Amino acid sequence: MHLAALALPIVQAPLAGGPSTPALATAVSSAGGLGFLAAGYRSAEDLRFDIAAVRARTGAPFGVNLFVPSSGGVDRAAVEAYAGRLRGESERMGVPLGVPADDDDGWQDKLAVVKAERVPVVSFTFGLPGREVIDELRAAGTYILVTVTTPDEAATAHDAGADALVAQGIEAGGHRGGFTDDGGDFGLLALLRLTLRATPLPVVAAGGIADGAGIAAVLAAGAVAAQLGTAFLRTPEAGTSPAHREALASYERTAVTRAFTGRRARGLVNRFLQEHNDEAPAAYPQVHHLTAPLRAAARKAGDAGTINLWAGQGFPFAEEVPAGELVRRLGAEAKEALSRAARRPFGR
Amino acid sequence: MHLAALALPIVQAPLAGGPSTPALATAVSSAGGLGFLAAGYRSAEDLRFDIAAVRARTGAPFGVNLFVPSSGGVDRAAVEAYAGRLRGESERMGVPLGVPADDDDGWQDKLAVVKAERVPVVSFTFGLPGREVIDELRAAGTYILVTVTTPDEAATAHDAGADALVAQGIEAGGHRGGFTDDGGDFGLLALLRLTLRATPLPVVAAGGIADGAGIAAVLAAGAVAAQLGTAFLRTPEAGTSPAHREALASYERTAVTRAFTGRRARGLVNRFLQEHNDEAPAAYPQVHHLTAPLRAAARKAGDAGTINLWAGQGFPFAEEVPAGELVRRLGAEAKEALSRAARRPFGR
Repeated sequence: MHLAALALPIVQAPLAGGPSTPALATAVSSAGGLGFLAAGYRSAEDLRFDIAAVRARTGAPFGVNLFVPSSGGVDRAAVEAYAGRLRGESERMGVPLGVPADDDDGWQDKLAVVKAERVPVVSFTFGLPGREVIDELRAAGTYILVTVTTPDEAATAHDAGADALVAQGIEAGGHRGGFTDDGGDFGLLALLRLTLRATPLPVVAAGGIADGAGIAAVLAAGAVAAQLGTAFLRTPEAGTSPAHREALASYERTAVTRAFTGRRARGLVNRFLQEHNDEAPAAYPQVHHLTAPLRAAARKAGDAGTINLWAGQGFPFAEEVPAGELVRRLGAEAKEALSRAARRPFGR
Repeated sequence: MHLAALALPIVQAPLAGGPSTPALATAVSSAGGLGFLAAGYRSAEDLRFDIAAVRARTGAPFGVNLFVPSSGGVDRAAVEAYAGRLRGESERMGVPLGVPADDDDGWQDKLAVVKAERVPVVSFTFGLPGREVIDELRAAGTYILVTVTTPDEAATAHDAGADALVAQGIEAGGHRGGFTDDGGDFGLLALLRLTLRATPLPVVAAGGIADGAGIAAVLAAGAVAAQLGTAFLRTPEAGTSPAHREALASYERTAVTRAFTGRRARGLVNRFLQEHNDEAPAAYPQVHHLTAPLRAAARKAGDAGTINLWAGQGFPFAEEVPAGELVRRLGAEAKEALSRAARRPFGR
């Protein structure tokens, strides 16, 4: 498996938290792109089930994304204070806040699953796994991607043995996937060029790309493929909640916030984000656990104002269209955009 | 004059505050790009002189950039408080702080100059001129560009009669050029695609582009040209201060700050930015005038820690190379990047 060998240079972002499903990954991989499953927030058991579900439907390669546990200490008093501020939300939704635990999202168990299953592609978010993890996965035949948000992280991931990088620009929806919570604000295009300057690795470009011309742009800038997440959120194969789907079609703008999870993530600007953005501490996964029951209740109630409505800046391009059809259309649009641009005369 | 008619799709950013010179604009325009003069911070007299200097050296089209005066009220107490915090800087540099005046940068006089001189291209920063200004300039044969940082601003500029837009991403060095101080954080690629979706106007892409592949990317995404600023800061034709030149070759990162001028602008992270970023109010041009003597003294003394070291995120690509040679090289690199990307097979 090498990303340059994909029939279409389109990677489906892992979309942890519900939207990614075996059906979505299957549709994308079957159409010639690279579908992804999210291990984040799932049990190792469920992950194994998801992998089997994809394999039952397609022989095409697919990927699994893992969250690397963070090691940093957290300001417990700040988490307590934030919990205090969320009491009104808890009363309003009629559910208690979650326990702000510091877990590792089942890291070892999920690693064991992807190793045993010899998953074709594994990508890491929130940091760099140890060298031995990378070596073992490679020995199992797995192609290893590491998410970076700065050129420095890119160089570090290269030294650690990554096969390729996902360069995530500030435009991206969902969590900033770099090594620390404060990963700067690199726009995708500058990040992509600086990453290709800093390392010889193939780079997948992620962040705000949601149409064929956007894909063409990052290919022209040297990316091996484009990663799209928000573009798939409205496909029927995605597990996106109905309230989130509606918000994608009607909300106006996005912002980066720690309000929902204690880690910077981009979402549609809704009531919860506006009210709590300034108070939220940098404390992941503690704040994630704290707000999880609120968000689950809000999803059930269709209360878009209280849900983490992850979305990248290109969200207005997201359409309600089957994922396989979308991948084929994006490929055709990208191809056309590149031929058009290549026809421009340069010089007199 | 139409931007699509440029021999090379490269626009030199106006670079107000010293770096842009008639020599730089001439070199860029003579090489087939579009050179720019900055009217900002210059007198109408000096602007007329600069225009004559370009015309004496080339018959090629060039542009002039104007700052649109802002109309918003400013928190005078916040400006006073910031002045108080800068007292130590004033003592250290041995110069008094400037008077935090609310001027309009000689708007009417400079408008009269560009009208009388029938400048081929005029671009506006910090807002939208009135309809009558646009109509008069167009009657004088001028092609009119408006700088935008959001798709909404793009739609407004289209309605107001702009011929084309400069879409400025968050990656860009120097001031955020949109209509308000709070113009969001759109990355260039997403902004470009959304702007082309919002209006039928040609769009020049600006922000963090500093090499040929970056130019190729925005052309593939549908831009009519790329605007580069930081890439020209180290050319011998630029008026960049020696300390700023050295900083571009040695500093590590950039950030957006109001510390120097009271308006969001991206520069290399130096001492002044770090110490005053959190205190600076949104008050332009008051804070600009307040800190101007400090910055002038620092430039004279070669004290990079106190200068506004404007730079876009692509600054590591800036090289010490003659501007005309740079434009030709960027054009060749962009062309090559597009042909390479267009050769990729799509589909099986």
